[in-house]
Amino acid sequence: MPKQGSINIYTIIVQIPTFSDIQSAYLKIQNKVHRTPVLSSQKVNERAGGGELFFKCENFQKIGAFKFRGATHAVGELSDNNAQNGVATHSSGNHAQAVALAAKLRGIPAHIVMPKNAPGVKVRAVRDYGANITFCNPTQEAREATLEEVVAETGATFIHPYDNLDIIMGQGTAALELLEEHPKLDMLLAPVGGGGLMSGSAIAASGLAAYTKVIGTEPEIANDAYLSFNSGELYPVQSTNTVADGLRTSLSELTFSCIQKHVDDIITVKEQEIIDTMRFVWERMKIIIEPSSAVPVAAAFNHIDTHDQQVGIIISGGNMDLDHLPWMK
Amino acid sequence: MPKQGSINIYTIIVQIPTFSDIQSAYLKIQNKVHRTPVLSSQKVNERAGGGELFFKCENFQKIGAFKFRGATHAVGELSDNNAQNGVATHSSGNHAQAVALAAKLRGIPAHIVMPKNAPGVKVRAVRDYGANITFCNPTQEAREATLEEVVAETGATFIHPYDNLDIIMGQGTAALELLEEHPKLDMLLAPVGGGGLMSGSAIAASGLAAYTKVIGTEPEIANDAYLSFNSGELYPVQSTNTVADGLRTSLSELTFSCIQKHVDDIITVKEQEIIDTMRFVWERMKIIIEPSSAVPVAAAFNHIDTHDQQVGIIISGGNMDLDHLPWMK
Repeated sequence: MPKQGSINIYTIIVQIPTFSDIQSAYLKIQNKVHRTPVLSSQKVNERAGGGELFFKCENFQKIGAFKFRGATHAVGELSDNNAQNGVATHSSGNHAQAVALAAKLRGIPAHIVMPKNAPGVKVRAVRDYGANITFCNPTQEAREATLEEVVAETGATFIHPYDNLDIIMGQGTAALELLEEHPKLDMLLAPVGGGGLMSGSAIAASGLAAYTKVIGTEPEIANDAYLSFNSGELYPVQSTNTVADGLRTSLSELTFSCIQKHVDDIITVKEQEIIDTMRFVWERMKIIIEPSSAVPVAAAFNHIDTHDQQVGIIISGGNMDLDHLPWMK
Repeated sequence: MPKQGSINIYTIIVQIPTFSDIQSAYLKIQNKVHRTPVLSSQKVNERAGGGELFFKCENFQKIGAFKFRGATHAVGELSDNNAQNGVATHSSGNHAQAVALAAKLRGIPAHIVMPKNAPGVKVRAVRDYGANITFCNPTQEAREATLEEVVAETGATFIHPYDNLDIIMGQGTAALELLEEHPKLDMLLAPVGGGGLMSGSAIAASGLAAYTKVIGTEPEIANDAYLSFNSGELYPVQSTNTVADGLRTSLSELTFSCIQKHVDDIITVKEQEIIDTMRFVWERMKIIIEPSSAVPVAAAFNHIDTHDQQVGIIISGGNMDLDHLPWMK
């Protein structure tokens, strides 16, 4: 224990994935994931004020979101010995479905802890992939405690939705595909929730397109990444009701380190901008994107000068409750 | 005048387009329309009970519907002399937007008669393409009378939404593209409203794929084509509130003739089947299709044995009011 009055310098060393890790992940998963299309639209370009926007459409990915990439990679990396006890996670969203399907395709058990108030449609989706579901009280503590019990009982390997190297490597493969098709992007935009997609995307760009400006985007009322990025200190997200329900989580030390190293800027958008943008894309492009996916598009529409720029945007997913659209009160 | 008691046989000769007419239309419009993608989905195939369904996605066409193909062809066929006075039509739907945009791209005036209770969003869309709008009372008689006045005043050429050879030839180019990419279809399905799309599609199939069974589909509560096809007599549609609002119109002599000659069967679907199918496609494929487009898919899901069959489906469009989704009461 240092004596009082001395100066203590702690250095935290966090190992983050490299570009070659993402290339290697891609070789392993490329035959298991969809190579999603890159779409563009004259009306979207006009709305953005010129330039060319390229949407990497992970809403067309298996399970309807990019999460299947990371889960496929993480499940695939388990040794046969570890894999036989299965995998576990807690999630009520896309990560739960992604882990459930990836486990099913490898032929191993998946144990998913879900809050007992999770929407029936999400519970059914996970169950349809053959996962074992354990319900818990709807608090973060209950989730983690229940998960620990499940892991202790089953010997399953916990797969965190973003605080996990293999997950980040897998998520980065969407940007890798986009940059292969459009190597001259001036900017690459992605949403920031827990930071797994943002980290992987930024690392992919660092290896393939060092001149591409990498911009994270998040809701103004869930601006933990913005605050962390600009202060250099990791801020947890405050309780938030942002319509972009995929972006209510906080960065981890791991994803924060990736973002500090490889992201150039973080931009926030207002709730109404997210809703208006989502509706614009549905109406003009006839594709269903979830609110989290509208966040980077809203940034391009309202806060970035895209004139004469080639702008890549990761459209993260298309899963949402069609009974409750955010423009309906 | 024949004397009383004699037998009178009237022969009505209706000239209908040929396959080569459609090929010729395609050469003229192919650089002006989008070549829309053909999409498929494992979940859709499973829901249909096996087989492979190929969606020709005219929801991604300019103005969001196949109507732009016919309008582009019809507007393009006008002589320069006739074209200078512009074109006219009455419609509150996709045909109005299609004619407005096709005229704008040729640089000639478009005069659109719309009922004064047309939704603001549709009026704005037509106005955004630079068309002149004349409002009328919301009856068929008022529409036709107002259109006649507009034509008399302006010298514009009336472009009927389906009772028009050039329109039918243009609409047939969607099936032409689909059959080029998938020449071995066992069945080709399309919705039947006024019959322009169905006629063009069936003629295209007759030339490219004579073994392909061509099936028209329509709502059970707007079954004029079904009745006409099975009786051999042209029945007008009764007043109907089918959710498939694009299919509330009646066949003309022209489209009925095409259908009699080239369509193999007509199948009807229930309203709830249309709504459930539309939602299924939105949720699983993440694409927005309008209720009329769900009609042939609903037929494949509920009324056709698609097992081991390759089934092409023309997805007619994706324009709808996102404030009023049919599964919301």
